Amino acid sequence: MHVEQRQRTRALLEAKHIKRALFANPNSIRWLTGFTMPPQTGPSFFLGGPPVVWYEDGHYTLIVLDGQAGEAAGVVKDADCDVVTYLGYTIQQPIAGTERLTDALRKTLSKGVANGKVAVEVNDLTVALWQVLSEVISDKAATVPMDGWLVPLRMVKTQQELTKLRENFALTELGHAAARKATQAGKREIDVWTEIHSAVQQAAGKRVAFGNDCVVGYRNANIGGWPGDLALRPHDSLIVDLSTLLYGYWSDSCATYYAGAPTAEQVKLHQTIERALDYAISLVKPGVAAKTIDQKVRQFIADAGYPVYPHHTGHGVGVTGHEEPRIVPYNDVVLQEGMVIMLEPGAYLPGQFGVRLEDGMLVTADGAEVLTKHDKSLP
Amino acid sequence: MHVEQRQRTRALLEAKHIKRALFANPNSIRWLTGFTMPPQTGPSFFLGGPPVVWYEDGHYTLIVLDGQAGEAAGVVKDADCDVVTYLGYTIQQPIAGTERLTDALRKTLSKGVANGKVAVEVNDLTVALWQVLSEVISDKAATVPMDGWLVPLRMVKTQQELTKLRENFALTELGHAAARKATQAGKREIDVWTEIHSAVQQAAGKRVAFGNDCVVGYRNANIGGWPGDLALRPHDSLIVDLSTLLYGYWSDSCATYYAGAPTAEQVKLHQTIERALDYAISLVKPGVAAKTIDQKVRQFIADAGYPVYPHHTGHGVGVTGHEEPRIVPYNDVVLQEGMVIMLEPGAYLPGQFGVRLEDGMLVTADGAEVLTKHDKSLP
Repeated sequence: MHVEQRQRTRALLEAKHIKRALFANPNSIRWLTGFTMPPQTGPSFFLGGPPVVWYEDGHYTLIVLDGQAGEAAGVVKDADCDVVTYLGYTIQQPIAGTERLTDALRKTLSKGVANGKVAVEVNDLTVALWQVLSEVISDKAATVPMDGWLVPLRMVKTQQELTKLRENFALTELGHAAARKATQAGKREIDVWTEIHSAVQQAAGKRVAFGNDCVVGYRNANIGGWPGDLALRPHDSLIVDLSTLLYGYWSDSCATYYAGAPTAEQVKLHQTIERALDYAISLVKPGVAAKTIDQKVRQFIADAGYPVYPHHTGHGVGVTGHEEPRIVPYNDVVLQEGMVIMLEPGAYLPGQFGVRLEDGMLVTADGAEVLTKHDKSLP
Repeated sequence: MHVEQRQRTRALLEAKHIKRALFANPNSIRWLTGFTMPPQTGPSFFLGGPPVVWYEDGHYTLIVLDGQAGEAAGVVKDADCDVVTYLGYTIQQPIAGTERLTDALRKTLSKGVANGKVAVEVNDLTVALWQVLSEVISDKAATVPMDGWLVPLRMVKTQQELTKLRENFALTELGHAAARKATQAGKREIDVWTEIHSAVQQAAGKRVAFGNDCVVGYRNANIGGWPGDLALRPHDSLIVDLSTLLYGYWSDSCATYYAGAPTAEQVKLHQTIERALDYAISLVKPGVAAKTIDQKVRQFIADAGYPVYPHHTGHGVGVTGHEEPRIVPYNDVVLQEGMVIMLEPGAYLPGQFGVRLEDGMLVTADGAEVLTKHDKSLP
């Protein structure tokens, strides 16, 4: 899996005349190999550090904790990539993840040639691994920082990534059906949230990392946030912004629900945001600059007489839930066929109510194919 | 908060004649400051790296993402510790967390003296921050690796930590009540799990990171693992090992439930493990070596005619869910009053059923005060 990602990366490195590279950014690792660690309870206590990938002359080596070998083997199955593991949990000796990981890297590096430039993701690499690199690699070698190099390569999705994203969007849709049903006066944000998350995990048949927001309209900061113990009163709006992580890819989505019947003012705003989202989607096609979409959608909200949202108009999704192309005021990046982006106009009256609606879409040859199917309509 | 932790650390550093130190291990940061990032959906997309703490002449500075300033301010309130933030999310310019974080560290460092030894947690520090340290600190300065230095300091809990742990144990107990009720033939592991997690989060009034295991007896690897879509049949055992993360501290706990009435063999094993746990707890008092408890409890299981569990007999809990003192075969560490440890004997018949029971306890002057109150009895 992820052969195409590694081919793109190889082409980039060859164009830069780089034969060796050490990847340490978790998003790079996930994108290059398909290997993902479940985030829910934080990093394993037995890790020696985040997983790394060593690249040398077109070949990739993923180094992971032994307890994650099964998961790694399930995704790294190709001639151009293999997996090296190191000892994590043991009851026979003290836990020494970093020593084991540095040993594993040392052995992997020492198989290769001893000089030449090495590109390194220095923003994420730990000093412990950096010191191994310094030991093993000839001191004549120049290290070249390569943070962010893969970000543009990640923008256009492969067919395999699209399949993963579609499964996430389908699961998220199911979460929205549960959210619409659960939004009732008397329930708290957290009650609605646990119903949604339970429905999603029961459908998936396993634990699923799950974001993002579940906020009642009368919160002063009613744009977003984790659910709390605030109760819904009759007519309260509830912004429910959901994302799931399956196979290392994040979905996203947002809808706004109401505890009972919405008020006339809520209906008016909801309809405005529906039109804003339709308008935003209508702007999507290859060749359009991200900032153009951003500016036009903000203007639409302003023209409708509402305060313009302070957040992005949208963003890409993939191995992260917010990535390029960011649909924001400064961004000159131009949409290309095969990108997957979210668009999410909203308007917020602090302490009263807010509405946000969000769809995800694939940029096609002449427009957009909407991938999110959740019902965003008024009740 | 966490003043006592910082005082212990200061005493350690002064004893080693170290005036400056850079902490980068997330568990060190949490223990030193009380600052915790919720793990559930992974690191924020806008982070420049994990938070760090700079120590200089008795004063601590925590550097965190601006979006986390509120949470940091809520826990860091003392004369010996302040908070510096850096820009993360913005729609006005490209996301550049690492550049902002390195700038923040550079400014913080440049306020101090320019030479002398600097102790550094190199296993977790990123190269980007290491390079800032190299720039700003005189090149005559020696850096001293200090990974693991705080681990022994963390073993004996403060009164404040005990309060946090007790709240986690209470929440976990509530999860076990839900688990006992939910364990029924026809339900799947994930169905039981979502009921437990929902009960816990509804009681807490917010999202709570939640581990560890929910495994039906007929799994071949029935010691532990995340819940899946395996259904419980009549008489199946279900090992439910729960931990919660509130205020940056982890609880732990385990019980074994049955779908309907347990079989005679299950009853016999369950009673054996109950006795093993009682026996284990009876061994706890200051001055006993961790490995002595481990060896005696393993012997108890062997004497009862069951296969000896392949895992630890127990471990400490605190800012991590598995820490010193590890109750394992090699560990000479001696119990001290004020430690909080888990004990969790079990026995597993692969593919058939397994039983594990686990309690958490405070080591007292003459024994143990059990902190876990969940019902571990046979139905």
